[in-house]
Amino acid sequence: MTVEESREREVLDRIERARRRRPRVREERITLAHGAGGKATHALIDAVFLEAFRNPALEALADGAAVRAGGTRLAFTTDSYVVSPLFFPGGDIGDLAVNGTVNDLAVCGARPLYLSAAFVVEEGFPVEDLRRIADSMGAAARAAGVEVVTGDTKVVQRGKGDGCYVTTAGIGVLERPAELSATQVRPGDAVLVSGPVGDHGVTIMLARGGLDIEANLVSDTAPLHGLAGALLDAAPGARVLRDATRGGVATVLNEIATTAEAGVVIDEAAVPVRPEVAGAGELLGIDPLYVACEGRLVAVVPGEQSAVALAALHAHPLGAGAAVIGEVRADPPGLVLARTAFGGTRIVDLLVGDPLPRIC
Amino acid sequence: MTVEESREREVLDRIERARRRRPRVREERITLAHGAGGKATHALIDAVFLEAFRNPALEALADGAAVRAGGTRLAFTTDSYVVSPLFFPGGDIGDLAVNGTVNDLAVCGARPLYLSAAFVVEEGFPVEDLRRIADSMGAAARAAGVEVVTGDTKVVQRGKGDGCYVTTAGIGVLERPAELSATQVRPGDAVLVSGPVGDHGVTIMLARGGLDIEANLVSDTAPLHGLAGALLDAAPGARVLRDATRGGVATVLNEIATTAEAGVVIDEAAVPVRPEVAGAGELLGIDPLYVACEGRLVAVVPGEQSAVALAALHAHPLGAGAAVIGEVRADPPGLVLARTAFGGTRIVDLLVGDPLPRIC
Repeated sequence: MTVEESREREVLDRIERARRRRPRVREERITLAHGAGGKATHALIDAVFLEAFRNPALEALADGAAVRAGGTRLAFTTDSYVVSPLFFPGGDIGDLAVNGTVNDLAVCGARPLYLSAAFVVEEGFPVEDLRRIADSMGAAARAAGVEVVTGDTKVVQRGKGDGCYVTTAGIGVLERPAELSATQVRPGDAVLVSGPVGDHGVTIMLARGGLDIEANLVSDTAPLHGLAGALLDAAPGARVLRDATRGGVATVLNEIATTAEAGVVIDEAAVPVRPEVAGAGELLGIDPLYVACEGRLVAVVPGEQSAVALAALHAHPLGAGAAVIGEVRADPPGLVLARTAFGGTRIVDLLVGDPLPRIC
Repeated sequence: MTVEESREREVLDRIERARRRRPRVREERITLAHGAGGKATHALIDAVFLEAFRNPALEALADGAAVRAGGTRLAFTTDSYVVSPLFFPGGDIGDLAVNGTVNDLAVCGARPLYLSAAFVVEEGFPVEDLRRIADSMGAAARAAGVEVVTGDTKVVQRGKGDGCYVTTAGIGVLERPAELSATQVRPGDAVLVSGPVGDHGVTIMLARGGLDIEANLVSDTAPLHGLAGALLDAAPGARVLRDATRGGVATVLNEIATTAEAGVVIDEAAVPVRPEVAGAGELLGIDPLYVACEGRLVAVVPGEQSAVALAALHAHPLGAGAAVIGEVRADPPGLVLARTAFGGTRIVDLLVGDPLPRIC
């Protein structure tokens, strides 16, 4: 066995052990929790999709797959967007779909190049709204420097959809030597976020109405490849990047802790949260750590690169609110802990479902 | 202007002229016709998506985009699948989604490598059915020699979907020097199909019940990259390949005639149609030429390569029923004509919608 093979073996073993620790699908029917990004989603993916598709690229279960085509190393990713409402302060399903896929490529360490866009539209949907969504996608693509080069449109009968669902896939080119993966995370590493958490999720919740809260809040949807590039230039030893979408920062940190077989300890007071988000969270009993962002990086870097990484984030317009929020420890493996403001420690567990369905 | 630039200019002009001849979107709301692949779909794509995304790769409007990443020429494609019912004789939404994307890559002349798979599942959908779909995708991927390397799962509330929608995207590598495009088509070229047309569409229609027809018919869903490769090896001058999905062979030929600014004349009697498909078509008043196939190639090759192309198709298990069905002429530009069995000629026009919604 070569060094490379034995390293690949070790990574696969670690992934396999992480899988075994995960819950099983007990339900006979799909529930909203299966789409929430938490425990139920993980169990479904393990039991249904990993079994069916088995291959190392998929089993890494990152935001995208690292693959090779011809002589080129590519990142490849996809996401369906079912956000409700379709239009919300700060964005809409169109720029969300473009930025989301750009970000999945960015956190693979790739330079995003091309997107596909597939639409499932409900009969009766206003053509003008579809145009608005497409225009917003076009503008977001131009802003991110990518091209939407291929697409598809399907129409389903009234009552078989919800206006418009969008699925984007993206290709980026992997030009950096470093492999970004939670398997690279080591005790002593620092955990950073690039800005205040939970803006997107709380914005969506408020846009749905029904809550008597007024807040001057907009979605954080943004393309993160520039920010990710700046971070990787400054901290070339970076272990893993993630965008904290469905399930929020808490879910991302749990996935990292599980795969890395390490403990992640965060300092609750260090996590940047806007007062509006904290307020809405308190009213609704939702911890902002679990609320989706659509333009926030979570980064794990070696402890000694923590300061340069933070400086690089601060120097970028999208990282002005960045902070070091915690560190990686050997123990307890697979768990995320938060030091509370009162000096205590609590477990930040993976939720089964999500209090906020269809957030993206 | 270099020779290459002037050639690219000519191709873009031709595409632009084809666009101007297309109808405009007059409706204020999306109808099922907009998803049927005919005139209404073309108008919608022109008016909404091409305007928003404008770039040469997209405007070629082929089954996939030819792009470059690093030093590698890639084909990239996507399709959403909303077929109803999800399971039908000969296949299900899972293998349909894999084969459909493999075929879109194959008709670009690419070797298919990697797929993504994104699911929009309705709350209450049986987990066992999702497993069956995933298993079928896994088997289809293995049969086609591709890997599903990345994916996503979203869940929508009951009444906001129809069981399960699947969106696949695919990456293939373009290894052949020839560029396959309808812009390459010339008078004197021959038009071939790789087998009987309309099996998939009629199978779906019968599977929906409500028709009192018994037929021993199964979907033709199959991966066509092997067949396409054999054809391109035998007839390296091939102009364009298409898979005759939504809208059937008639729609594909219309798209070719419009883009090529040439006439396509087919011999009705030469088009292979199974008796069951012809019978169901007669009962329902549907011309099999417009019925979707999911495993049939339409190929245009130089007239002098017609015989070797046909022999190559016949030599492959998926091309046993192949036939030369017509030829390309200078006139009438942009139209498809059929010589009828009675010695007459009729126009095979692009339909506005489709008599068979949600066929794929």
